[in-house]
Amino acid sequence: MQDKQRVARAALSRLMEPSDTAGLALVSVAGPETALAVATGQTPGDAGLEREVARCLEEEGVGGGWTGLGPALRRWAPRVADLAPERDLDTAARLGGRYLVPEDELWPEALNDLGLMTPLGLWWRGAETPLPQARSCVAVVGSRDSTSYGASVTGELAHGLAQRGYSIVSGGAYGIDAHAHRAALAGGTSALPTIAVMACGVDRYYPAGNEDLLRTVAAQGALLAEVPPGSSPTRWRFLQRNRLIAALAGATVVVEARWRSGALNTAHHADSLSRPVGAVPGSVYSANSAGCHRLLREGSAVCVTDASEVAELVSPAGSALADEFGGHAARASDHDGLNLEDLLLLDALPVRAASSPEKLSTVAGLDVDTVLAGLGRLQLLGLAEASAGGWRRRKAAE
Amino acid sequence: MQDKQRVARAALSRLMEPSDTAGLALVSVAGPETALAVATGQTPGDAGLEREVARCLEEEGVGGGWTGLGPALRRWAPRVADLAPERDLDTAARLGGRYLVPEDELWPEALNDLGLMTPLGLWWRGAETPLPQARSCVAVVGSRDSTSYGASVTGELAHGLAQRGYSIVSGGAYGIDAHAHRAALAGGTSALPTIAVMACGVDRYYPAGNEDLLRTVAAQGALLAEVPPGSSPTRWRFLQRNRLIAALAGATVVVEARWRSGALNTAHHADSLSRPVGAVPGSVYSANSAGCHRLLREGSAVCVTDASEVAELVSPAGSALADEFGGHAARASDHDGLNLEDLLLLDALPVRAASSPEKLSTVAGLDVDTVLAGLGRLQLLGLAEASAGGWRRRKAAE
Repeated sequence: MQDKQRVARAALSRLMEPSDTAGLALVSVAGPETALAVATGQTPGDAGLEREVARCLEEEGVGGGWTGLGPALRRWAPRVADLAPERDLDTAARLGGRYLVPEDELWPEALNDLGLMTPLGLWWRGAETPLPQARSCVAVVGSRDSTSYGASVTGELAHGLAQRGYSIVSGGAYGIDAHAHRAALAGGTSALPTIAVMACGVDRYYPAGNEDLLRTVAAQGALLAEVPPGSSPTRWRFLQRNRLIAALAGATVVVEARWRSGALNTAHHADSLSRPVGAVPGSVYSANSAGCHRLLREGSAVCVTDASEVAELVSPAGSALADEFGGHAARASDHDGLNLEDLLLLDALPVRAASSPEKLSTVAGLDVDTVLAGLGRLQLLGLAEASAGGWRRRKAAE
Repeated sequence: MQDKQRVARAALSRLMEPSDTAGLALVSVAGPETALAVATGQTPGDAGLEREVARCLEEEGVGGGWTGLGPALRRWAPRVADLAPERDLDTAARLGGRYLVPEDELWPEALNDLGLMTPLGLWWRGAETPLPQARSCVAVVGSRDSTSYGASVTGELAHGLAQRGYSIVSGGAYGIDAHAHRAALAGGTSALPTIAVMACGVDRYYPAGNEDLLRTVAAQGALLAEVPPGSSPTRWRFLQRNRLIAALAGATVVVEARWRSGALNTAHHADSLSRPVGAVPGSVYSANSAGCHRLLREGSAVCVTDASEVAELVSPAGSALADEFGGHAARASDHDGLNLEDLLLLDALPVRAASSPEKLSTVAGLDVDTVLAGLGRLQLLGLAEASAGGWRRRKAAE
């Protein structure tokens, strides 16, 4: 057990904001312990290290603001005095939790798809049950101010997926998130029916109105966060948290979202990870469906209307599983499978007064021989019947 | 004027069902007059002609049942006795109409995209105004048993498109079709605000309940059919009629459709002609939206929620026109366009009690110089204000 690495990563998780590219590059090139020593000023960062960090960022295609090691050190400095990683680890343990790091066996492989943006570690509250693999997780996300339509669809989707053994990943927020967690808790058949990924520390219940729900999720599922205990949720942390939801799940479904919505951010993270995204359609008059329709229009999401369609997104091969639960029962029609002549003949057959083969020949535009042969076939199928006056149509038996 | 050709095509339109591949190939290789002579048995079809028809069908990639000339002749024979093309042309003229043929100047070019399946001619009732080009026509189609949601969306879409100068093409049926025609008649700004393509003769009002509507369409727009006056609508004719709707319009929109629906047939015709298809989303609980969602899932339709989005389908370049009518007004948020540091700083700024730059530095995870510079920028944007006790957040002016 690399406990020094764990302590170093715990400290770094307080020092740096999520997705601090310079910081993550520093950890990547120097390892967590050296990175912490440099970040806290115990070891001076030299020009060689600076170059390595720059090269790492370049390889990852990261540009923009957070790239230099110098500015990063100045950015981290104000937080150095407050570091107390052992205390944070104790807090997590007291809550029945732990700090999972990439070196651990239980580390979810799926997060490594984030590349440089893989979190430093996961503050994890709940039983030490392995997190399900991405292909067994579905993220169900959406508006905080969901409508009754959104609540109903979320409940059915999450319940149906949980019944199929999927774990439901969401953000613990009001609205769609909360409905998704609740339905999963009610219907779950997997060891971890639901996972809430928080933008604040796992010791906090945010939003406060979801305290009971989040306590239950911690007891029967898992609460996860990359920020350490005590951290408050900020806009930046919400946005970065969304990448973890997208990465943990094999597919992300947006049930309701406004034209501008955090759920769309999660969907775009999933899309950029090449994870399938589903969007639930709704009324064109509902502002809460405008974001879903936007995803569908942009082609970044597939239209999904029930749990079996979502299950197909995660495991296209597992359609047998989906079929078991039914889907659209495409009811056969009388005219299914008829050849062209028989279709024309069926159209021409009167329902009441019977008609002669000669008359049918003119009406249908078929020669008499074809009509006679076709009448035989339709009779066998129970679609035509002969009477004294000629032929008429029969409704197929239900 | 090729009046003999017109008469021949009129006769052939009664002899053959729509999309009779062997018949259309015969017309293609021999011309309408010779084709009629062969089809009616006046001129015997020889082996050379048979081969040419077969080659034409092969070139068009047509296989299956209706390919041989021999069976075709037997199929047409029962109708020969009833041919009276001059009488049919008189009937059309008496109704204020005509029979348009591909040789005519007014023939809509767009129909030629159907290749071999181009109709023999168009029975046309209404003023002799040129039919609009495909890029000025939108097909709006859907369920006969539309819901109030479908009726409302259809009305808004068709009215909005008609106001923009598009001609609305539909099938004259109950439900979505009727709502589309009515809204176009009410809002139309083009010479032919709406066009109904019928599966029966243009002298018939089908369904009977739409008689008033279809009379108005004939007076202010156009009624079209490929089958001659007096023809009754059959399933086959409905299905073939759908290809004309799809071909005449630059784009096809399905507002409501069940899982199995004629409107989907129209959409697939449009798709196979590489004409864009739009589908209106709706409740996942509405059976009348299941067909639309199916199109979206299959990727054969784009999600459309208002007239401007439909207009974009028809003329992607005409977005200026669409903008004029507005669309989603993406309201800007306070944090739009901020750089990463300023975003973190804005998150850290308290709304009530003011905070010092040093405290903000720890909370935001930024060095003090960056905080001071950022506070200056946020102040300029009206997002931060300084007071005696320090800095606090300000809501941006609306």
